Amino acid sequence: MQSDNPTAAILVIGDEILSGRTREGNAHHLAQVLNATGFDLREIRVVADDHDQIVAAIRALDRSLGGAYDLLFTSGGIGPTHDDITADAVAAAHGTTVEINEEARALLQARCERMGTELTPNRLRMARVPVGARLLDNAVSAAPGFSIGNTHVMAGVPEVFRGMVDWLIPRLAGGRPVQSQTVEVRRGESEVADELGVLALEFPDLSLGSYPYHDERGWGTNLVVRGLDAGRVGAAMAELKKRLGL
Amino acid sequence: MQSDNPTAAILVIGDEILSGRTREGNAHHLAQVLNATGFDLREIRVVADDHDQIVAAIRALDRSLGGAYDLLFTSGGIGPTHDDITADAVAAAHGTTVEINEEARALLQARCERMGTELTPNRLRMARVPVGARLLDNAVSAAPGFSIGNTHVMAGVPEVFRGMVDWLIPRLAGGRPVQSQTVEVRRGESEVADELGVLALEFPDLSLGSYPYHDERGWGTNLVVRGLDAGRVGAAMAELKKRLGL
Repeated sequence: MQSDNPTAAILVIGDEILSGRTREGNAHHLAQVLNATGFDLREIRVVADDHDQIVAAIRALDRSLGGAYDLLFTSGGIGPTHDDITADAVAAAHGTTVEINEEARALLQARCERMGTELTPNRLRMARVPVGARLLDNAVSAAPGFSIGNTHVMAGVPEVFRGMVDWLIPRLAGGRPVQSQTVEVRRGESEVADELGVLALEFPDLSLGSYPYHDERGWGTNLVVRGLDAGRVGAAMAELKKRLGL
Repeated sequence: MQSDNPTAAILVIGDEILSGRTREGNAHHLAQVLNATGFDLREIRVVADDHDQIVAAIRALDRSLGGAYDLLFTSGGIGPTHDDITADAVAAAHGTTVEINEEARALLQARCERMGTELTPNRLRMARVPVGARLLDNAVSAAPGFSIGNTHVMAGVPEVFRGMVDWLIPRLAGGRPVQSQTVEVRRGESEVADELGVLALEFPDLSLGSYPYHDERGWGTNLVVRGLDAGRVGAAMAELKKRLGL
């Protein structure tokens, strides 16, 4: 698909995904949001709670550090426990250090006062943010995410992650949202490959995908046309349906 | 967690994941299988249906090509359509070319005869395999996966992927399976951070994870102890429960 939308990557930090304990869902949610708001998501990486691995991934993915993509979003590893090492790793990747952010401390302090609890040293750990970072707000918890360079650092708890995405994405300059149309056929992929191949040559500006599945009735395939121009997407889908006799 | 188990990565090839159309599930399934069979999954990557991106990822991840991990498993992009480019990319990464594999052709031919269909040129595309690769069997479809170097190439259709995993994993030499125990507390992460931190120092051979969540009742946290020695895992969990007053 031809696009000059900003490119993006997602870095998920979490042993719980790699151990199979948790099925990743934050990247899936953000992928949908990015496509709808004009960002071209090119890569997702899941790495362990490992300082060196996180630093290397951030450097490889954030263009402001010489990496491959315009924007990098991370999920996970910002919290109060010993294994929450994302802030330190992000700081190291961006060549800075971590400090108690006074704005974040004030947010946490206000939250504790509302809840009638103490701002313990563990809670205060959530105000540890790289020097020079801007805070990300969220409606769910007082622990802030943050942005530094082109890296946007968000929580792993799904509800908090979504809150941060809702706050952050409208503040970033996206491009044109992706338009897509889908048609489902009860045929295997090899039965529709010729029609798709011809159409791909006719519509080089679009992305034509075929996603086969297998269920109790046998094989079926979802055919998806994607592109930035709704008229072109509609024209390609009409042509595809005609060729398939639908 | 201390482990000398073989290390592994998963490479998922598929625009449908990056567009948010499909929630990834194959890597989640394989992560569970790998942990249960003594492989140390260190990274998951999702890349687009893009030749150069796939080649670069394979080279970065497969130790036989100088990459980071002992074993690499891929999901997706082997099929009959124009956008199924995995076989070519795997061949390029391993410095070889693709040919019609005669063993695969025979499998597809036999399948077509059973089904009373023709081995069309599109179906025959599924026998295109890198020169020197070994085939992977699966119970669901005749289209084979394959292994070359330390890269194991499997289908993206979940049912077929699982069939290939079931066939392949018992044929690989794994290490010791990971043991894990979980306890759930209705407290926020910062309420248990001290106990976890102390335990992490006492049990440096284990991995201690805390996974907070937020629901209608407020905050809760799952605490997970993981390691290769069931006795050590049990001892750490007993100590953790004692410290938490459970």
